[in-house]
Amino acid sequence: MPDEDAIIRRMTSSSARLPGGYLGPGDDVALVPTSRGRVVVKVDMLVGKTDVPRGMTMRQAARKAVAMCVSDFASKGVRPDSFLVSLGIPRGSTARQVEEVALGLYDAASRWKLKLLGGDTNEAGDLIVDCVMLGSADRIVRRSGARPGEAVVTSGFFGYPPSGLKIMLGSAVASQTFKRRALRSVVLPTPNLEVGVALKPFLTSAMDSSDGLSKCLHTLAECSEVGILVERIPIGPGVSGFAKANGLDADELVLAGGEEYEIVGTVKVSSIQAAREAARNAGGNLIVIGETNELAGSVRIRRGKRIVPLARRGWTHLA
Amino acid sequence: MPDEDAIIRRMTSSSARLPGGYLGPGDDVALVPTSRGRVVVKVDMLVGKTDVPRGMTMRQAARKAVAMCVSDFASKGVRPDSFLVSLGIPRGSTARQVEEVALGLYDAASRWKLKLLGGDTNEAGDLIVDCVMLGSADRIVRRSGARPGEAVVTSGFFGYPPSGLKIMLGSAVASQTFKRRALRSVVLPTPNLEVGVALKPFLTSAMDSSDGLSKCLHTLAECSEVGILVERIPIGPGVSGFAKANGLDADELVLAGGEEYEIVGTVKVSSIQAAREAARNAGGNLIVIGETNELAGSVRIRRGKRIVPLARRGWTHLA
Repeated sequence: MPDEDAIIRRMTSSSARLPGGYLGPGDDVALVPTSRGRVVVKVDMLVGKTDVPRGMTMRQAARKAVAMCVSDFASKGVRPDSFLVSLGIPRGSTARQVEEVALGLYDAASRWKLKLLGGDTNEAGDLIVDCVMLGSADRIVRRSGARPGEAVVTSGFFGYPPSGLKIMLGSAVASQTFKRRALRSVVLPTPNLEVGVALKPFLTSAMDSSDGLSKCLHTLAECSEVGILVERIPIGPGVSGFAKANGLDADELVLAGGEEYEIVGTVKVSSIQAAREAARNAGGNLIVIGETNELAGSVRIRRGKRIVPLARRGWTHLA
Repeated sequence: MPDEDAIIRRMTSSSARLPGGYLGPGDDVALVPTSRGRVVVKVDMLVGKTDVPRGMTMRQAARKAVAMCVSDFASKGVRPDSFLVSLGIPRGSTARQVEEVALGLYDAASRWKLKLLGGDTNEAGDLIVDCVMLGSADRIVRRSGARPGEAVVTSGFFGYPPSGLKIMLGSAVASQTFKRRALRSVVLPTPNLEVGVALKPFLTSAMDSSDGLSKCLHTLAECSEVGILVERIPIGPGVSGFAKANGLDADELVLAGGEEYEIVGTVKVSSIQAAREAARNAGGNLIVIGETNELAGSVRIRRGKRIVPLARRGWTHLA
């Protein structure tokens, strides 16, 4: 069967050319023009079987569905305003479980100051929380805006969610401190919306990294028609030690994992300092991990003295 | 476990009071204010197991998911502009089946002149097509606007979808002509958007009837705090004969069925003529089925010389 990317390509290619002001498939969000400004809309589906690891509560799962959309908005530099939720509830769920889902939605509404505008409730074979998020903006940071000679940046360190997932699945062990941080990144993903909004003036391109860092870099390189050379992998503190202790490859954890909710993007070299300050003032980070070049679509990484292609790995639904 | 209505009540009661301009849970659509006008948004989930009877193709199912949202917009008098779709695709689906889903979305986009803005694709245990529809309007027809002494109207006849479903499930037989019409109403539901738009100036309240006529009348009576007396059941031509031939109760088919995509609403008695003309010019109907009164929340029906309470029956997910 076709994988997620093939399905999206199919939808994109056959989509009639959209009139001015609209943004259709192929970026983190869609845009609808109105008489003044544009409506920003994103829909992201959480499915129990694939997105909710054992050990994660329904309350956390519902909160995560909203966080997934917030992450997309953050990467576009747009503060979301409100959301709706379409629920699929497995028959036989208890009132307590449904209550948990509602609580998770309120957790997210409260954390990111969002209005919950209702939605739809259905019976389904698995837990489905499909979040529809709305905001407005005249301009968003696109995936396609990078030019050669810019700095490639991330809004934070990578590696905690894939480490946490391995710990939850019982296939890795960790110190109490690392375990707490890694598990928290899985069950309470918290994209930094303030950093996304603060970085908007500086980002020439950006996207959300929930499908993993390597896939994300490839997508940016393709959408912007630039090359990317990764000089430094943004390995989170403690991730190397965790990887070593469990016989894992730390680079692999960082590059090929998924469920990361950092922003990956590009800034002009001249604005790195100002961007870093803006990110810090918003309680976040700005980590320079490489630079763009003229080799359109190519993503490479420096390994010691050699420069080698970086494989496109990461999460693809239905792959 | 709590049924759909209980879950929605739970969500509604705990939702923080929304600022002016917003419309949250409790009507067919939600509203988000922008600097000029308001964004109208609706999300509706189609689930294979409950919403796609055997014999309905994936193409028809995908089209139906969009039709479900169009029906809500029609009942509010608002022409939708665009939509997004969150897909849950069962693992093991063929490329052909995925293509079918895409084709069904294009069928709907073309039928109602809508822009498809992308969405999200996931693996799920069942076919999920969650449609998010967007439009804009300064004003919509609310569920809550009816006053005593108005005419209760529908935009067409009822009874074909429940009859068609029984035919598809093999539990009823019908003439070729009736069968064609009834089956078509199930696999190619076609809410009359033009009639909804044309009726907007006349409707004091309205809602979509996809959960069935009786439930719909109860909801309107509650939201508008009026009573409703049904004088005439809008039985579609041929439905009585079909019911009789199969030992079914025609009134029950019409009142307690679901998946009907007509508008049910109220108009001032003085504007019935003008509303009927507007509906006809838009290629539809306006059928007066009763009137509103002061008995807030009560729904009754005239049976010969008696007036009896009309039971609240119809489709409730998870009931």
